[in-house]
Amino acid sequence: MTVRKIERAPLAYDYPLLIKNLLRPPLRYSPQQEIVYKDIIRYNYLTLEKRIARLANLLKDIGIKQGETVGIMDWDSHRYLESFFAVPMMGCVLHTVNFRRSPENLAYTINHAENRVLLINEGLLPLFESVKDQLKTVRKLILLTDDGTRAAAAPEIAGEYEALLSQSDDRYDFPDFDEDAMATILYTTGSTGTPKGVCFSHRQLVMHTYGLMAGFSAYQTRPMVNAGDVYMPLTPMFHVHAWGLPYLFTLMGGKQVYPGKYDPETILNLIATEQVTFSHCVPTLLHTLVNCPTIKEMDMSAWKVIIGGAALSGDLCRAGLERGINLFSAYGMSETGPLLAAAILKPEMEAWDTERQIEKRCRTGLPASMVDLEIVDITGKPIPHDGKSIGEVIVRAPWLSQGYAKDPLKSADLWADGWLHTGDIGFIDPDGYLQVTDRLRDAIKTGGEWIASMELEDIIREHEAVSEAAVTAVPDEKWGEKPLAIVVLRDGYKGKVQEEDIRQFCMKYVATGALPRHGVPEKIAIVDTIPTTSVGKISKKQLKQNLPFNLEDGP
Amino acid sequence: MTVRKIERAPLAYDYPLLIKNLLRPPLRYSPQQEIVYKDIIRYNYLTLEKRIARLANLLKDIGIKQGETVGIMDWDSHRYLESFFAVPMMGCVLHTVNFRRSPENLAYTINHAENRVLLINEGLLPLFESVKDQLKTVRKLILLTDDGTRAAAAPEIAGEYEALLSQSDDRYDFPDFDEDAMATILYTTGSTGTPKGVCFSHRQLVMHTYGLMAGFSAYQTRPMVNAGDVYMPLTPMFHVHAWGLPYLFTLMGGKQVYPGKYDPETILNLIATEQVTFSHCVPTLLHTLVNCPTIKEMDMSAWKVIIGGAALSGDLCRAGLERGINLFSAYGMSETGPLLAAAILKPEMEAWDTERQIEKRCRTGLPASMVDLEIVDITGKPIPHDGKSIGEVIVRAPWLSQGYAKDPLKSADLWADGWLHTGDIGFIDPDGYLQVTDRLRDAIKTGGEWIASMELEDIIREHEAVSEAAVTAVPDEKWGEKPLAIVVLRDGYKGKVQEEDIRQFCMKYVATGALPRHGVPEKIAIVDTIPTTSVGKISKKQLKQNLPFNLEDGP
Repeated sequence: MTVRKIERAPLAYDYPLLIKNLLRPPLRYSPQQEIVYKDIIRYNYLTLEKRIARLANLLKDIGIKQGETVGIMDWDSHRYLESFFAVPMMGCVLHTVNFRRSPENLAYTINHAENRVLLINEGLLPLFESVKDQLKTVRKLILLTDDGTRAAAAPEIAGEYEALLSQSDDRYDFPDFDEDAMATILYTTGSTGTPKGVCFSHRQLVMHTYGLMAGFSAYQTRPMVNAGDVYMPLTPMFHVHAWGLPYLFTLMGGKQVYPGKYDPETILNLIATEQVTFSHCVPTLLHTLVNCPTIKEMDMSAWKVIIGGAALSGDLCRAGLERGINLFSAYGMSETGPLLAAAILKPEMEAWDTERQIEKRCRTGLPASMVDLEIVDITGKPIPHDGKSIGEVIVRAPWLSQGYAKDPLKSADLWADGWLHTGDIGFIDPDGYLQVTDRLRDAIKTGGEWIASMELEDIIREHEAVSEAAVTAVPDEKWGEKPLAIVVLRDGYKGKVQEEDIRQFCMKYVATGALPRHGVPEKIAIVDTIPTTSVGKISKKQLKQNLPFNLEDGP
Repeated sequence: MTVRKIERAPLAYDYPLLIKNLLRPPLRYSPQQEIVYKDIIRYNYLTLEKRIARLANLLKDIGIKQGETVGIMDWDSHRYLESFFAVPMMGCVLHTVNFRRSPENLAYTINHAENRVLLINEGLLPLFESVKDQLKTVRKLILLTDDGTRAAAAPEIAGEYEALLSQSDDRYDFPDFDEDAMATILYTTGSTGTPKGVCFSHRQLVMHTYGLMAGFSAYQTRPMVNAGDVYMPLTPMFHVHAWGLPYLFTLMGGKQVYPGKYDPETILNLIATEQVTFSHCVPTLLHTLVNCPTIKEMDMSAWKVIIGGAALSGDLCRAGLERGINLFSAYGMSETGPLLAAAILKPEMEAWDTERQIEKRCRTGLPASMVDLEIVDITGKPIPHDGKSIGEVIVRAPWLSQGYAKDPLKSADLWADGWLHTGDIGFIDPDGYLQVTDRLRDAIKTGGEWIASMELEDIIREHEAVSEAAVTAVPDEKWGEKPLAIVVLRDGYKGKVQEEDIRQFCMKYVATGALPRHGVPEKIAIVDTIPTTSVGKISKKQLKQNLPFNLEDGP
């Protein structure tokens, strides 16, 4: 005996979850609500619908067929929003091209995704020219300009976007098709190796949109987003569909503001003039904005911001809150849609004092609605949510990428036993908030468990003599791996504090249970500087070079 | 060339949309939030999860297998909520038995749904006894009592619910299965013929829950529902899962209050003591509550109510608003999950004056998120949303019943050309609000279009001499059908106003375009009383009997 499938009538019709259905509600609820692009364009949802139809007709007219891929290279704009809908709705695949990569990688992704047409901002034409000879599939360019003029008369340019739109029909009968149809493709940056193509289906993007709605509108007594909010993205639209929020704000019929390139003065000016209330950005950009002189004269108390892409520090969170900004951390990756967790406050936490709130707001996040999230040990067994036991973060959700395009081997690495393996490790606190502590590849696998190198670094930095610390794994016959610590001392301590002092300091944490005995670094190197990458992160790769001792020696 | 299906990795895992996933968020966001049953029981979501596991174990222990049907006969209770989850989550089908029907129909539905076990309130045992001999599939009863005692020792009674729960394990590994698996079955009342079984799958119930969330939390600047609300149903849980709202409030982790039988004093008392902020009910019950002496001393300004099941009148809406109640109409049917439309105010309408708001609040509704709703003419062509052209209401949504259980013929009637035919006719106003004016079978099909009998009745009632009016269709060779009007005159007008006066009065509406020429009743009968059904509705069936003229005669 098994579960009973629902009986279907002969004429019954399955309702597929398609992106076009996200566009219907705003036309009913708030057709006059605005879409704004800088101080250049402003139109309502009725016009958005017509422009989406025009774009689909334009693409059809230049020969694009269902199943083919259309790429877009633009900064955040109304045009980008239009492509989010028109391209998948006609049954094609939208490639949101990340143009901030090496020319080789750029050409690779455009070829790999088999882009037939590129919608390209005129400002990116020099970049296109530099890779043009390597492109194998692009037949036509459509030029995106802010003033409607056509920059160059190169033969591959089909025309200027606005001019072409104005010649196209404003009605298009968008067809129904299978909800598993591919809608978008984007490429992970991947610090090493070739970029990997992450694909999303219509069903996945629709479910992700409702997941965002649940996560940000239903669980709080003062919802983070609703139809009254004014949205402006501050993570690029090529980066996992600006975290899916343009789809959510369209579904809710909210006002949307697109800022083009991220210039701090333009951003602050748009926040003030368009009364922006909701954004998402990386810590670096928030840091720049919070330290902008202009912000001092502004009332930021209506602004709500989700921080992702990197950890939100307590200091930055505090600085934001002091300016009146309601902000918290969120978590995800390209492969996950991206929403996995958001550090929204539970209703009872809204009454907590600021410092206690900051601890939660800076957590990686509380798993979102429809996300199953677990932390598991090396054997795959779930571990307790005690705020200290760390394990690998594995997830399930209706919108997770099913694998990488044309790459079954890497896809198989991503999934195991029905769970997507994030490659992050961390703990879950007793309130249910995840704290990612490390990338799995940077963690130390010792004695059958993981030790987060960042956690150990934090412990060592507690020593009064230490100004910087970095921890990495070295192979160990008995334990599998053991931690290696690289330490820079503060001025005045050099020559006075030895490796053994640091080791003894760590032993105190063994006594309290915060660190296992074999988690104490046996090898500690006191050095003058710690190598960092071009973006300021500790370079774990270079750590093991130029050490003042041989790694094969005993401690 | 067709759309591209998403590529799947070998180990990839589809995430099915299952009811069990609705239960996870409250355990994360508000595990301590309460479920309350009258003044008898109160527990939190952690306990709810355990009790759901206990119920599943209990059912498994008495031999229920996946695919089998479990019936429940109870008034609104925490037990009912537990069955909403436990039964479908174990892969069984929950039959929410409507016990307010004739014993023959009751036995028919229990047999037709093949119930193996009945969870039955002890107060309904006499009803069970009256149909017991007709039941063919029920093997065991589980007795639902408020005091935990076991009423009778009849052999078919497996035990009392609380006693059995307490003996069961509080962990159950609810399996994954196909999201199209059948979750619930309920029977439409259907004034004629045998009841029809309407089935819903896990996917449909999950999507309906997110549809409710979108409709009631995202589109308004002051959301109708969120996690801070306290929910109490006032339409029975056997009536289309209490409109699906127990699933929504569980997903949101809100406080839920179950009132048992609908006794006005108990209801008002619970609203006051539990601080209920959100309910749904039929106009009759709201009318009773608003006219209850107790309500005069109560502050009702936090209460939000969705009205459905019958039209919300302007007078009742006004009376509710005067008590501070925020209320509006919603629309759906058993076959539609039920949500199709809700007359929520658009953001800009929140500033309108009360009378203008009442007009919108009493509309049938604005189509909900994920609902495609059209009005079509007799040929199936969509008609304009001009606030007067009427057509049949047809719908699509991800949660519509795919047909009736074991009844392919009636199922085929329900669906045509991929749309579910509601059997209602009405118009859509320029703001997009649907107004249902009639049941299709009561409408007059004349000259290739429909005339709503209720609309014509309203026109005739405008005449100063008319106290009551009823309109029905009679066959007409030239026009297909023509309206027949039955009129009761006010005292003092009898003998002074003739049929021809009424006809001439209707002609004025032809002049304004509100009524087509052939919509004017040629046959009008002035009578002493209009026949009504047992619930006070006009009996259109009996209208044509006992007329003062022969229907075959000319006017």
